[in-house]
Amino acid sequence: MSFEILPKIQSPRDLRGMSDEGLTQLAAEIREALCRVVSNRAAHFASNLGVVELCIALHQVFDFSKDRLIWDTGHQIYPHKLVTGRFQEFMTIRQKGGLMGYPNPAESDYDLFLTGHAGSSVSTVLGMKTADDLLFPADGKQPGRKSVAVIGDGAFPSGIGFEAMNNAAGLDKDLLVVLNDNKMGICPRVGGLAKYLDKARVAPFYNGLKRDVSWLLNKLPLVGESVEHVLAQAKDAVKGFLHGGMLFEEMGFRYIGPVDGHDLKSLRNYLEMVKDIRGPVLLHVFTEKGHGFEPALQDPVKFHTPSPFERDGCKVIPVKKASAPSYTNVISDAIYAAMKANEKVCVLTAAMCEGNALQPIRADFPDRFFDTGICEGHAVAFAGGMAKSGMRPIVDIYSTFLQRSFDQIFQEVALQNLPVTFCLDRAGLCGPDGPTHHGVFDNSYMRIFPNMVVMAPGDERDVAPMMDFALTHSGPVSLRYPKANVENVERTTTPIELGKSEVLEWGEDGMIVSFGAMLSTCVKAALKLREQGLDVGVINARFCKPIDVETMTRAAQQSGFVITVEENAIEGGFGSAVLETLNGAGVGTSNVKVVGLPDRYIEHGERGELLAELGLDVDGLVKTALQMRAKAQGTVATESSDAVATMAE
Amino acid sequence: MSFEILPKIQSPRDLRGMSDEGLTQLAAEIREALCRVVSNRAAHFASNLGVVELCIALHQVFDFSKDRLIWDTGHQIYPHKLVTGRFQEFMTIRQKGGLMGYPNPAESDYDLFLTGHAGSSVSTVLGMKTADDLLFPADGKQPGRKSVAVIGDGAFPSGIGFEAMNNAAGLDKDLLVVLNDNKMGICPRVGGLAKYLDKARVAPFYNGLKRDVSWLLNKLPLVGESVEHVLAQAKDAVKGFLHGGMLFEEMGFRYIGPVDGHDLKSLRNYLEMVKDIRGPVLLHVFTEKGHGFEPALQDPVKFHTPSPFERDGCKVIPVKKASAPSYTNVISDAIYAAMKANEKVCVLTAAMCEGNALQPIRADFPDRFFDTGICEGHAVAFAGGMAKSGMRPIVDIYSTFLQRSFDQIFQEVALQNLPVTFCLDRAGLCGPDGPTHHGVFDNSYMRIFPNMVVMAPGDERDVAPMMDFALTHSGPVSLRYPKANVENVERTTTPIELGKSEVLEWGEDGMIVSFGAMLSTCVKAALKLREQGLDVGVINARFCKPIDVETMTRAAQQSGFVITVEENAIEGGFGSAVLETLNGAGVGTSNVKVVGLPDRYIEHGERGELLAELGLDVDGLVKTALQMRAKAQGTVATESSDAVATMAE
Repeated sequence: MSFEILPKIQSPRDLRGMSDEGLTQLAAEIREALCRVVSNRAAHFASNLGVVELCIALHQVFDFSKDRLIWDTGHQIYPHKLVTGRFQEFMTIRQKGGLMGYPNPAESDYDLFLTGHAGSSVSTVLGMKTADDLLFPADGKQPGRKSVAVIGDGAFPSGIGFEAMNNAAGLDKDLLVVLNDNKMGICPRVGGLAKYLDKARVAPFYNGLKRDVSWLLNKLPLVGESVEHVLAQAKDAVKGFLHGGMLFEEMGFRYIGPVDGHDLKSLRNYLEMVKDIRGPVLLHVFTEKGHGFEPALQDPVKFHTPSPFERDGCKVIPVKKASAPSYTNVISDAIYAAMKANEKVCVLTAAMCEGNALQPIRADFPDRFFDTGICEGHAVAFAGGMAKSGMRPIVDIYSTFLQRSFDQIFQEVALQNLPVTFCLDRAGLCGPDGPTHHGVFDNSYMRIFPNMVVMAPGDERDVAPMMDFALTHSGPVSLRYPKANVENVERTTTPIELGKSEVLEWGEDGMIVSFGAMLSTCVKAALKLREQGLDVGVINARFCKPIDVETMTRAAQQSGFVITVEENAIEGGFGSAVLETLNGAGVGTSNVKVVGLPDRYIEHGERGELLAELGLDVDGLVKTALQMRAKAQGTVATESSDAVATMAE
Repeated sequence: MSFEILPKIQSPRDLRGMSDEGLTQLAAEIREALCRVVSNRAAHFASNLGVVELCIALHQVFDFSKDRLIWDTGHQIYPHKLVTGRFQEFMTIRQKGGLMGYPNPAESDYDLFLTGHAGSSVSTVLGMKTADDLLFPADGKQPGRKSVAVIGDGAFPSGIGFEAMNNAAGLDKDLLVVLNDNKMGICPRVGGLAKYLDKARVAPFYNGLKRDVSWLLNKLPLVGESVEHVLAQAKDAVKGFLHGGMLFEEMGFRYIGPVDGHDLKSLRNYLEMVKDIRGPVLLHVFTEKGHGFEPALQDPVKFHTPSPFERDGCKVIPVKKASAPSYTNVISDAIYAAMKANEKVCVLTAAMCEGNALQPIRADFPDRFFDTGICEGHAVAFAGGMAKSGMRPIVDIYSTFLQRSFDQIFQEVALQNLPVTFCLDRAGLCGPDGPTHHGVFDNSYMRIFPNMVVMAPGDERDVAPMMDFALTHSGPVSLRYPKANVENVERTTTPIELGKSEVLEWGEDGMIVSFGAMLSTCVKAALKLREQGLDVGVINARFCKPIDVETMTRAAQQSGFVITVEENAIEGGFGSAVLETLNGAGVGTSNVKVVGLPDRYIEHGERGELLAELGLDVDGLVKTALQMRAKAQGTVATESSDAVATMAE
């Protein structure tokens, strides 16, 4: 298939005059572009296939050069990028320097917010609408700005979505929330609301029944005053029930729908209809995740972010790759083993069963596997409750999404000193997903609260013993690991002891202290330095809280320099904890260098290339070490300091 | 009134056999005890008056020595404390060393969680229930453990409450949620749910109408197959509507109520009825905030936490006290002035209009005043949206409650670099409220994210210029201030400049660097040290991010010692930022001492006494300075180091 229409779309205005035939062709071309991208590189797929018609219809009916549109959980942004003038760069999506796989205001004025964490679109759209009404009120010359949030049924149960709907109803703002209901989060949806939406799905369509209903309501007998009063309102109740939107109506939203999200004409009609309704409106749209691509339709979970595949018509030949296991899998295995050994152990995920590789656990321990949906705050408080009753819950959530639970980590876990184990997946640079998904703040935020123990395995060998430690410790423990395959370091491991690091090799000239999975990189850097004649050792820190003050003191006092290494922001991170602790112990830190991520948001790209650019690879560490060596010797190594200046940028 | 019954209540078991007369007398005695407490000392009052009967009924019907009970937003815990064996110590409540004003597991096994942040009770109760069902399943010998959460209508709209209800419905757990509906948070409730509950309040009671309804439903005509099918379900819809609980029913809860929360007999009957229902149940209880005490009933906002008053029968004579204005008021005035000067400025509060002293703003700028209810996450994302559209929103939230927004501060504000101003009230030790309310982590958590500017006024004179700075800065800014009256420091102030501190006086022997309202304490300490012949200067840091690296470097290099002072955890706080920054700049920090709060949760008590105990008063700082002086001179001051050891404990 060749692209006839897409190359001509410079802006959504170009969609206005198009014929239905042209639009159908456009939809097909968008799907073709999606297929070409994902057969090159892992990218979000099924969800984008599902919103092609919705995206076209929205851009036809609204004018988002002034109206407001937020795609919640922005990975469904691809069709939007294609119709807002980004077709030429589209194949660069998720590549370093290329388009971002999420909305990005730096790319286009049609992208308003970088959205990666789910559920907050209604809040931001309500905020924009409220401000727009103050700053750009409708007048004779121009109508007020319209506001639309498109939110999936997976993101919908997020607490913040509910908070925003409650507020929108209270403020009675003209606001359109499009519920993109494909019956899925990334994994099948869960919870009471899911059941509710399933019911709505089989409920008779309101429009089809309209005549019957009005006939029916007119037949209702009116007897006695109190009953009459009740009945007048009961009509609304029955009506609400019939169109399946009672829940939303009760919350103060006008409910419209459901609409077939792949019927462009119908979608457009509905959008035209709701466009000028006063007050908050929820338009319920049914879509199919993976629509238009048979394999994705059959297995939308696998095709959420499929690995690259070759296409032969519609046949998918998975590209096989042999490699070391990922940390995610190693942790999942450790959780599995712990649950097998101890029936008090249970695990919670926030809609990431697949991402956390917990399917075997869900299958074999269904009673002790809990998927809360995208409700991280609740998941942590729920775990606190379970721990209070004597279970040993493991909360398995991506580092960046766990930020949603910051206050529950404080109040429901750390303050109560309850033995909850946090597994922070995707801790570090998350690669092509970019800044909303990089988990680069948890070393800083997990160590703030008293009672919390903050750990990271140096490699695979640390995982099982750390899990054992966590599950027998009397308070909360957190464990971080990156989205990466394990790289093991040959050694005789020492047992895990609270607040004790592991010295792999002592070095007179300098020590590299690694917190977490950078360990093998640090070992390789030390080997390179040894080749250059420097006696550099390596410490596997294991604990960020409590810090191994004894070993760190020895390193600072007895070795030439100390470099702390972490895949986390420098601000408040592991290195900061080392500085704090040594300072508190009265130990000088002039020869300590903190290496981590600079104080800016890191773009998307392959983890390896990003780390290299930031000086967090073998070469970068070698350069830093040489610079520290030069400083220790009182000489200036020009080349090295240049390298470090670049790094620190 | 003398106490006849209360002294005899050793445990809730003692309530079981009591006559209705005795229980009525007990309720009166509980109210008397509440009155005596609040006429001595500021304490939560109106909400406790409202739950007296509910508390008695719950303890009669359930056995919370094994069943589970969580009082959400635990300030309504007083009657519970009185009937669980704590009458003798009751008058010590909220005093240092006395009972805590919130549930406290350290006091009693009947208190399961320290709860101060609202809305998470359903999560923790669901967690306990889920674990109890696994660990203590019902068998022939004993029934399963029951679980009850009591949540106010003010806390109810919190996102986490919704997340938990959704999960509870999905898991179909036997769970009782008592909605304590007094039509109020601390301030009048807001939002769509509030309107909904108001409607439910006037809806006919289901029970009273039961016969009419069934008669009515039987009269409904049944015509045609599809209509018949619809009707069968419509009956449920009408029923749901009639008892006003449709919203909850749609979410998967069985709705029962409403019940008069001051009719003990009726409450007991309802609780007996719902006790053994399978699946999640919501019992809707109407209470009056302030019930049984006329002045509190008339003004429940004022009597939420009244200042001490003298009682003469039921007359209230407010105790007047003249003092400096509070930071809260000074900030409120600055916001008022900013809103008057610039119509793009608006303010958001999360149900703390009163606590934040925003009533004049609500009155005079109703269009630009937003109360989101207890929905901090939404409030911040909403502010992000407003900023995106060109407003200059101020988010005015207590430091500890802002923890709820950690992820929205990240994604919706800092990542987008939007100009939202955060006013962090109650930053520091919050006094008698204790650990759930102390705002002692924000220096650490606000500085983590790139783009964020983190400030604190040294005294009142900094407030207006800092507000000006914040409202003209191009990105997010945060400002912290304590729950305290201002203490001004005489000086000619310098203008606010990004990342610039203010040197009040230079000292050759040492410099005290104050971040925030400890400034006057630091100045007093410096004066005392000068009296002892030491040349000690003071810096008003103003910025925690970015740090004034130039001035800090000068202090560390040119003065004998540097002491950083903050009312925040040492972990990751201001002092930590100073160490990090100096280390990054290659400046030694051996002569820098970080003074802040130790790594444990601080108990309740008056702010002054807590600060003194922790070495954060004038004497404590003088001792630390003398110790640093001794260290600088290579001598050991035994007394001082003892003092510091106590302090660091």
